[in-house]
Amino acid sequence: MRELPLSKVYQLLEPGPVVLLTTARRGRTNIMTMSWHMMVEFEPPLVACVVSPADHSFGALRATRECVIAIPAVELAPKVVEVGNSSGRDVDKFAKFGLTPVPAKRVAPPLVAECFANLECRVVDSRWAKRYCFFVLEVVKAWIDPAVTAPRTLHHRGRGEFMVAGRTIRLPSRMK
Amino acid sequence: MRELPLSKVYQLLEPGPVVLLTTARRGRTNIMTMSWHMMVEFEPPLVACVVSPADHSFGALRATRECVIAIPAVELAPKVVEVGNSSGRDVDKFAKFGLTPVPAKRVAPPLVAECFANLECRVVDSRWAKRYCFFVLEVVKAWIDPAVTAPRTLHHRGRGEFMVAGRTIRLPSRMK
Repeated sequence: MRELPLSKVYQLLEPGPVVLLTTARRGRTNIMTMSWHMMVEFEPPLVACVVSPADHSFGALRATRECVIAIPAVELAPKVVEVGNSSGRDVDKFAKFGLTPVPAKRVAPPLVAECFANLECRVVDSRWAKRYCFFVLEVVKAWIDPAVTAPRTLHHRGRGEFMVAGRTIRLPSRMK
Repeated sequence: MRELPLSKVYQLLEPGPVVLLTTARRGRTNIMTMSWHMMVEFEPPLVACVVSPADHSFGALRATRECVIAIPAVELAPKVVEVGNSSGRDVDKFAKFGLTPVPAKRVAPPLVAECFANLECRVVDSRWAKRYCFFVLEVVKAWIDPAVTAPRTLHHRGRGEFMVAGRTIRLPSRMK
């Protein structure tokens, strides 16, 4: 994994990929699948996300205020779905689904070795956690697998249907 | 345009498409390009989005508390970029870029005829507008073009690069 400048993090999340969210609490790690997230600020990169109290990760996120956002490509799709179908209350998902935790540099939750990008995050605002299950995260360190140049990300369309990232086009946009 | 049940709106926004946002104020309509948005609740569908005070639409959105989210497919890509490159302060973007405003049913801002989906929205929470340029919208009416079955949406990867929606896969997900 190579370090990615924080100024480029929005390029990973803005297209709307399904992501994995890891947490760690009292020595136990957990992973959930998530696609309700968006960029809020370029740099330092702020990311908003929705994590429901029904998710086992909610408690860990609120208590520890740390997580990792790991971005899988299509090769991991079956595991991404299994992670989403199960709860950390019942199983150790890293062990059960053969995912490899890798120590992060600045937060306790682990990176996911099989993902092409990993973002170490701190919760910087949870005032809307009750109202909208809403967390604002700051990405404090970002990693990318330099071997993956055109990742086929997954994009959830509901009820088991996923769009897989297609071709890339370039247009004369002046937007950042 | 056929009406889409509000319970299905998340299936359009969750994959992270670039969207157009229309507003209307003092008889003048405007459009901007946006990709910082996410679902917050299934039904009634709540959508969070970031609209900067630097965008001409910010004032209209805050004052009128209404907008339409219109979702373009790749055929509209050049216009989507032109909309993003210009400001409603200077030009009537509907006229200049040959986009067709269509009256909405429940809000004043127009639908965009050329887009395959249009979501009529009301601002239900702007308490974080100053802090994060953050608006929570409720979708009150949704329209879809029944002729478009597999829309090739655009997904912004920064600096003029866009991913175009690729193939669809089905997996045994129990997630909604």
